[in-house]
Amino acid sequence: MLEITSPQNPKIKQVLHLRDKRERDQTGLFLIEGYREILRASDAGWQISQLMICPELFLGTNEPALIQRLSDKKCEIISLTPKVFEKISYRDRPDGLLSIAPQKNLQLKDLETSKKNPFYVVAEAIEKPGNLGTILRSSDGVGVDGLIVCDRCTDIYNPNVVRASVGTLFTVKTVQSAGDETLQWLRDQKIQILAATPSATKEFTEVNLTGPIAIAVGTEQLGLSERWMKEAAIQVRIPMLGVADSLNVAMATTLLLYEALRQRRHAN
Amino acid sequence: MLEITSPQNPKIKQVLHLRDKRERDQTGLFLIEGYREILRASDAGWQISQLMICPELFLGTNEPALIQRLSDKKCEIISLTPKVFEKISYRDRPDGLLSIAPQKNLQLKDLETSKKNPFYVVAEAIEKPGNLGTILRSSDGVGVDGLIVCDRCTDIYNPNVVRASVGTLFTVKTVQSAGDETLQWLRDQKIQILAATPSATKEFTEVNLTGPIAIAVGTEQLGLSERWMKEAAIQVRIPMLGVADSLNVAMATTLLLYEALRQRRHAN
Repeated sequence: MLEITSPQNPKIKQVLHLRDKRERDQTGLFLIEGYREILRASDAGWQISQLMICPELFLGTNEPALIQRLSDKKCEIISLTPKVFEKISYRDRPDGLLSIAPQKNLQLKDLETSKKNPFYVVAEAIEKPGNLGTILRSSDGVGVDGLIVCDRCTDIYNPNVVRASVGTLFTVKTVQSAGDETLQWLRDQKIQILAATPSATKEFTEVNLTGPIAIAVGTEQLGLSERWMKEAAIQVRIPMLGVADSLNVAMATTLLLYEALRQRRHAN
Repeated sequence: MLEITSPQNPKIKQVLHLRDKRERDQTGLFLIEGYREILRASDAGWQISQLMICPELFLGTNEPALIQRLSDKKCEIISLTPKVFEKISYRDRPDGLLSIAPQKNLQLKDLETSKKNPFYVVAEAIEKPGNLGTILRSSDGVGVDGLIVCDRCTDIYNPNVVRASVGTLFTVKTVQSAGDETLQWLRDQKIQILAATPSATKEFTEVNLTGPIAIAVGTEQLGLSERWMKEAAIQVRIPMLGVADSLNVAMATTLLLYEALRQRRHAN
């Protein structure tokens, strides 16, 4: 096993470079940090090409089994000193495991379309990685058929998306695509767009969400763009009884997802 | 009007110091940045003691009216150069307004208790300011009677709480108190504690949430502590159909808040 003791080692530099979107786009690689996240990626069939370990930082006793399993799958294992590991970690409390994996760039055509009532989420131009990550986590919670990230501001392979998603990025089918292409695909699939807007007359708990739907949400600052809003066949309002006129985008998405789930389970 | 052109000015240093909890605790002051946030604070009757402005950074046309209004209320107005303002701003896109205000340290006894079916949120030991801020925003959305922050890890006057709350910190009655004291107060008020736990048999949409309740949520890592969980008369489960075993704490709180709101409005 390779051991690295110097932060100047090129492999360490590559890890640091992968924090940048440009490097991720160019190499098609990204970072997965943490035992739980790497385990979920591996369980979900993602390939892990390189695993950096620092046994001094392990929090549990299952790490050797995971390392062995990845090693058996031709993953390169590299041991780091605590000082070097802390340099590459982007967590407050590093747990001694950080890996490099190839991105899976799924396309719209890779999404399931044979289901009777497909259930999608569209996230348009979300800026904050934490919001995208928690939208993934809630999407996993309700079992959507896919998340479509349109006109991305933050790419789904941003380390903070991976972290906030607690590994659900690896199980929710996630596609990055252009807005126009996505709108056309939804039309072709006869999937209705659901949007939340303060001007809607019905509340989100008062409309039928059991059909083929895509819950569409937009940027933190401006909400869903006009282009999407005017194609939204279902428009709903989230009650706002206080001074604020909207919820955080991830909160709004989660409410809509769980209301759809509630109705769908009652309908089946 | 005082004008400051040097970042070494003691008033600028004080603003920077107020980013630290210790300084906030000692002085009883905190920072409010942004037009919308300062306006909401003023609208809600909060006193603003000092307002730093940088007209070059203003985004709208209503700033002079707000400045005049605060000036009329004896707020000290200080003009900064863009360079100095950017030093004190903690936003990506500063809008040229940042203020210092005295904290309002509400106590449990300041909360409304005469209502028939009070509706509270208890946030125990939340670590991330963003989570506390979005819990405030959702609490405002449903119109809770108060938010009780127990055994705080992050104080509610952290600049990132203020920011994520989009000013709802100023309208939601928020109390910081110890866990034991809060549990006793809830018992005295005959308010039932509602907790979400994967081991509950009923889902959150299947129990009656129309009575006097306090929705209690705990830390990001470990959830609600045992002490609270065992006093939770109502325990519910949030469906988790994917690989993750829980939602982000602010998402879970928002779901519980809006389910309670839905039931309460139908009940009245």
